[in-house]
Amino acid sequence: MLIRTATDEDWPAIWPFLRQIVAAGETYTLPRDISEEFAREIWMLPPPNRTVVAVDPDGTVLGSAKMNRNHMGPASHVASASFMVAPGHGGRGVGRALGEYALDWARAEGYRFMQFNAVVETNTRAVALWQSLGFEIMTTLPEAFLHPTKGYVGLHIMYQRL
Amino acid sequence: MLIRTATDEDWPAIWPFLRQIVAAGETYTLPRDISEEFAREIWMLPPPNRTVVAVDPDGTVLGSAKMNRNHMGPASHVASASFMVAPGHGGRGVGRALGEYALDWARAEGYRFMQFNAVVETNTRAVALWQSLGFEIMTTLPEAFLHPTKGYVGLHIMYQRL
Repeated sequence: MLIRTATDEDWPAIWPFLRQIVAAGETYTLPRDISEEFAREIWMLPPPNRTVVAVDPDGTVLGSAKMNRNHMGPASHVASASFMVAPGHGGRGVGRALGEYALDWARAEGYRFMQFNAVVETNTRAVALWQSLGFEIMTTLPEAFLHPTKGYVGLHIMYQRL
Repeated sequence: MLIRTATDEDWPAIWPFLRQIVAAGETYTLPRDISEEFAREIWMLPPPNRTVVAVDPDGTVLGSAKMNRNHMGPASHVASASFMVAPGHGGRGVGRALGEYALDWARAEGYRFMQFNAVVETNTRAVALWQSLGFEIMTTLPEAFLHPTKGYVGLHIMYQRL
């Protein structure tokens, strides 16, 4: 698996799984009927932020991550990141590899912390993965997320020093 | 004191104190050298969000607040708000009146929670005011804010059920 900067040519491979993940409404605080235009705008970030893809040796896009500044001004030393693994390519370490890449990127860019603003508490595999990568659950905002089958569930705010 | 929706005509009264407060770098996660164009874009929110001014009987603008959706999609029942009281008009209940207005607005709009994403912990008057209005400090992100004289200080995440 290779992780490299995403280009315009990667978008047609990203959009189908991004759309599917957002439409499921279980993990992202994005409109479930997100438009391709808006999705591309929020996912394909120009420098100094970065969007990457994880690709198989045969070129198949397995997942994607975006890395960005979380706050401006006096809090601009706090980064954030978001991750999507294509359904059907889970369980192969794609999420972990993208997470490690994002942390390395943030350190190299001079960030001091990484903060995840909204990790759905029922997304237990992701929560466990981020914890294994050093993130701590700082708090859980009760009932902040309306899950399609589980009702109102909490949103974790996760944080780590880099 | 009257609180009413801000119009384009109010911007020349808001910009000087907004600029001063942001330039001080003590309370907002915004660039200290914020441009007027960017400030206006992030402060003067169109419906369904709302920006208001608090005005004296003589028409003097004492402060301003913006109220908005905090998250999208499955978390779009969480509101947020930001507040600026003009230096020289503090201690007269302007912040409290704006805070109460924002909570009433969020309830009327059908929001279920209000979340403040980044309250600087050294801004103790604001923290005490929000607590008196029902907000709880859910966590404090250590060293997330670089204060101009106090160094790295924490950012509170505050939350309340509406």
